[in-house]
Amino acid sequence: MSAPASECLFCKIVRKEIPAALVYEDDELLAFKDIFPQAPVHLLIIPKAHCEGLGDLTPEVAALSGRILQLSAQLARDHGVMTGGWRLLSNCGPDAGQTVFHLHFHLLGGKPLGGKLCQ
Amino acid sequence: MSAPASECLFCKIVRKEIPAALVYEDDELLAFKDIFPQAPVHLLIIPKAHCEGLGDLTPEVAALSGRILQLSAQLARDHGVMTGGWRLLSNCGPDAGQTVFHLHFHLLGGKPLGGKLCQ
Repeated sequence: MSAPASECLFCKIVRKEIPAALVYEDDELLAFKDIFPQAPVHLLIIPKAHCEGLGDLTPEVAALSGRILQLSAQLARDHGVMTGGWRLLSNCGPDAGQTVFHLHFHLLGGKPLGGKLCQ
Repeated sequence: MSAPASECLFCKIVRKEIPAALVYEDDELLAFKDIFPQAPVHLLIIPKAHCEGLGDLTPEVAALSGRILQLSAQLARDHGVMTGGWRLLSNCGPDAGQTVFHLHFHLLGGKPLGGKLCQ
């Protein structure tokens, strides 16, 4: 179900081979708008380095985890949801509906998100 | 909306002043079963050190982020959802429905979780 990094959709976004609505970029992390937004603010935060997901964390990506969480707060502020709040989540594997096998965190906000965390 | 650490529900669990169904503990992290489970596996992972949430990350807690993500994979394995998969999420603020203002990550798995990430 996973693709090699050369074929990975998000690696292609990192390499600018396909477009995305970028909202943040540095040497290690990238954030862009989800193309199927479920909330007024729906961003994806990814490490540039490829790893499939939470079940496959490389030491390199694990070391970036704190920066990913901190970036979620920075983006929440930038996109006007710091006060209202946001949900940060990562899906891993088929039961969670993971479709792109490059670790990514959804940042959702801008409306009441509800208390159901799954179906 | 937040409580001082002395009154914080999860700090009381850390101090063993109130009971919880613990599934993991070390010097820095604690994990226990959610008392209102939404999936066959529904655990909460918290840093023992108090911080309110993603909008209030202390450097001490930010430094534990990689360990939190790695612990989610270990717990997924321990609870039989490594292959099926899991969702890891943290709610921050009122729109996300955060009710306990001590940073915590929900780990959900054990059934198809659906593609709706909010209401």
